[in-house]
Amino acid sequence: MSSQNPSAAEKILKGDKLSIARAITAVESARPEGAALLKEIFPKTGKALVVGITGAPGAGKSTLVDRLAAFYRAQGERVGIIAVDPSSPFTGGAILGDRIRMQSMSMDPGIFIRSMAARGNLGGLARATVDAVAILDAGGYNKVIVETVGVGQDEVDIVKTADVTVVVLVPGMGDDIQAIKAGIMEIGDVFAINKADREGVLRTERELETLLSISDRPDGWTPPIIKTVAIEDRGLDSLAEAIQSYANYISSHKNELDSRRASVAEHRIIEMLRDRLLRIALNKSVGKDELRRMAGAVAARSRDPYSIVDEIIERLGI
Amino acid sequence: MSSQNPSAAEKILKGDKLSIARAITAVESARPEGAALLKEIFPKTGKALVVGITGAPGAGKSTLVDRLAAFYRAQGERVGIIAVDPSSPFTGGAILGDRIRMQSMSMDPGIFIRSMAARGNLGGLARATVDAVAILDAGGYNKVIVETVGVGQDEVDIVKTADVTVVVLVPGMGDDIQAIKAGIMEIGDVFAINKADREGVLRTERELETLLSISDRPDGWTPPIIKTVAIEDRGLDSLAEAIQSYANYISSHKNELDSRRASVAEHRIIEMLRDRLLRIALNKSVGKDELRRMAGAVAARSRDPYSIVDEIIERLGI
Repeated sequence: MSSQNPSAAEKILKGDKLSIARAITAVESARPEGAALLKEIFPKTGKALVVGITGAPGAGKSTLVDRLAAFYRAQGERVGIIAVDPSSPFTGGAILGDRIRMQSMSMDPGIFIRSMAARGNLGGLARATVDAVAILDAGGYNKVIVETVGVGQDEVDIVKTADVTVVVLVPGMGDDIQAIKAGIMEIGDVFAINKADREGVLRTERELETLLSISDRPDGWTPPIIKTVAIEDRGLDSLAEAIQSYANYISSHKNELDSRRASVAEHRIIEMLRDRLLRIALNKSVGKDELRRMAGAVAARSRDPYSIVDEIIERLGI
Repeated sequence: MSSQNPSAAEKILKGDKLSIARAITAVESARPEGAALLKEIFPKTGKALVVGITGAPGAGKSTLVDRLAAFYRAQGERVGIIAVDPSSPFTGGAILGDRIRMQSMSMDPGIFIRSMAARGNLGGLARATVDAVAILDAGGYNKVIVETVGVGQDEVDIVKTADVTVVVLVPGMGDDIQAIKAGIMEIGDVFAINKADREGVLRTERELETLLSISDRPDGWTPPIIKTVAIEDRGLDSLAEAIQSYANYISSHKNELDSRRASVAEHRIIEMLRDRLLRIALNKSVGKDELRRMAGAVAARSRDPYSIVDEIIERLGI
């Protein structure tokens, strides 16, 4: 704790990029020092505005995120970006794209961009993302943008942890807008119709308005619809303004804000618990080799997986 | 066990639809009788050919699945269909669609169609889907089709448990085919280009061929590309044939088959374990009300989630 040898947490709180990057790697790999660090920095978090940006593949989310980040930068904000890549075959070349984005943005000390990927079968992407947001928040990034491809439960779960969620659509989804189910009403606090110079923008807008008019949000908010052409930097100011209005609105509705934050926290505790319990079981109750043998027995149908799980749990003595 | 009062398991093994439906509901709700039932029927499973069908939203998967099912029916097969709905806003009107599909198909005693949705925050969709497949398998459905929207880690995980996986594309994905990352090579055993009467089919086919030519599958299989127009029943015979060829191929490569099955079984054990451990912790270590209070404290930042998880685990004594 001496000033000559600042701890990792102290360096993060000073905004040291390398320490931030290392801490994110630690939480991504679920290493114990990551958890220790997060306990230390957690009380210093909660200052950033966390913006979740999601939408169907091809909606131009990455460009929108980059331009929004540039807009925030021009206003003197420090911006953290977490691009969540669920390693799905249909989600776009996030990894390659991010490398290019990282090259062009990494020169700016006020921007931190990181892509997070699902690793292996032990899950934990949602938990790792929330932890990374906390690290950036503690590191003084006052706008943190979490970008997901927005399809699949994992992505929806991730985006639900943001303070403000932007759902990105494109014109000409045509009949597909029918596909947007009631669920979207709870998720989108702001809707962006990107590529709004394309044909069909009015129809998409009208259909979306109709959908939103029948929504019944518990917080009483009516999500604004913003038209953007991200690639030409059009509409970014209105988008930033709409994001801020929801943030202001929800701050002035204390009950709704508390209940949103509590439900995010509950979800987070559950996700962390799930991860930790599995990890403990795989350490204490069944080793890698034994698990592989058990799996072989199930594959050969000489044992059933249900009794194997019973056995592993019994050994844990819980 | 008397013949006058057959058990639920016996009824399932006789193919009784009502008992099958009830058993799926039991595993979906993670009720204990579901697990007991599965232990009983598990040794009788492994006879069905499980076909996973996945692809980007709008690729026409549901129609393809329905027509493939009709094709199998015409050959005298019994067909089970599980449509996985991850409750994502972007995945199409699966629930409404299924109701319509169920009405038209439910008259046929040789077809069982069921949609499975993610419920609440406790996850378990992948586990419940695999359990439902086992129930249909035990119930004598010799073709079981699992349909997912194919975006997001959950869906990829689900589809990986199939014997044969079909990835559905549509022409005119244009540059988006770039978006199909290397990951798809491991997932698709057969590729269907649906809506193959549309412009751009040759380009899509050529791009896909290029992608497949650089793939290096551990089983040495070259995935065939089948063109279909599902809505006009075109190409379904070729698709069924391609599915069967992969099933035959992998059966004759015992090492690869064993290793695929063992890795599916391992994944399954891990998923079940994760579910069960969380459930036990939420029953024994922390009640609903206390969890809510803890979440409130985290939201107010008077406590951090990491020490809360430590505390819950400590109470479990593991």
